[in-house]
Amino acid sequence: MKFKVLLHVNEPERWAVAISNIINFLNDVSEESAEVVVVANGSAVKGYVREGETPGEVQGTVCAVGVSAGSADMEELSKRGVLFLACRNALHTQRIAAESLPDFVTVVPAGITEIVRRQADGFAYIKP
Amino acid sequence: MKFKVLLHVNEPERWAVAISNIINFLNDVSEESAEVVVVANGSAVKGYVREGETPGEVQGTVCAVGVSAGSADMEELSKRGVLFLACRNALHTQRIAAESLPDFVTVVPAGITEIVRRQADGFAYIKP
Amino acid sequence: MKFKVLLHVNEPERWAVAISNIINFLNDVSEESAEVVVVANGSAVKGYVREGETPGEVQGTVCAVGVSAGSADMEELSKRGVLFLACRNALHTQRIAAESLPDFVTVVPAGITEIVRRQADGFAYIKP
Repeated sequence: MKFKVLLHVNEPERWAVAISNIINFLNDVSEESAEVVVVANGSAVKGYVREGETPGEVQGTVCAVGVSAGSADMEELSKRGVLFLACRNALHTQRIAAESLPDFVTVVPAGITEIVRRQADGFAYIKP
Repeated sequence: MKFKVLLHVNEPERWAVAISNIINFLNDVSEESAEVVVVANGSAVKGYVREGETPGEVQGTVCAVGVSAGSADMEELSKRGVLFLACRNALHTQRIAAESLPDFVTVVPAGITEIVRRQADGFAYIKP
Repeated sequence: MKFKVLLHVNEPERWAVAISNIINFLNDVSEESAEVVVVANGSAVKGYVREGETPGEVQGTVCAVGVSAGSADMEELSKRGVLFLACRNALHTQRIAAESLPDFVTVVPAGITEIVRRQADGFAYIKP
């Protein structure tokens, strides 16, 4: 049986902790026995925007916050099977076009619903 | 089967996020298929105090923090079936009289116990 | 059946809230009917270091943060059956030697794994 875990990130400054948690977890239990899902909502979705890229409709400041430094780590983790989800409501509020997100990010209608469904399906919840 | 979810709010500044999460959730799954409970403890119980009202024993500053702006939204959500709970220990610590709370708020002996019981009863946990 | 609850502390400034939550909980349900586990990772492991003690390899500042004031409460709670765990990865990152921790603290290989396992085992999750 696999370890199933969902990490909920809703503030950009928590990405570093979340990424570190996932790396420690996969190193501990091995990626074959783990199913890891990250749900980003709120302003945390800014962490998915690639550095140097203009996120869709938005000009300017979003890319400058320095939270997307995690992107390389995220891409690496996605190759190890980690699923990265972005809340569509949050993207709208943050004025980030879904098209501007990296390929490894999947947009879901509502992050909260995803969190509720996954817990009902046996995923542990962690707020990094 | 209903989606059961508990939101835990323990800091006043997280109310806006919590309210927004609930609205997105109900709009996504419809209130008929959702059972939503909010447990407020710690200083977050200040968010239940109506603006302009003096909370029980306390004079002055509590109402000025601007967190109770959510009250109208809370009342609206309570009409859509959302249950708002306040921890009695927290009310005591914050010197807020239970009588000063809006009618839609229910006081429970200990917020933490409520959170533990609900999760044992199948509620998903979300920390906004 | 016992109430099973895990508290996740990953920032030193959340210890006071966590300790208060546990005291309220045990006073409400009694320690005989509760199984309480605290998992500390990230910089929160600094909260386990006794005041006035130099934590292993580190000289200086760690003890000065004033978060270890909770130690007496922690020791008291450990006597009431509360289990305090520290993440080994976090200890390494924070340069705290396991030997410098109080006797009531148990070191686990990865805090995240512990959180996932416990939830799969029926523990409620609380982020104070």
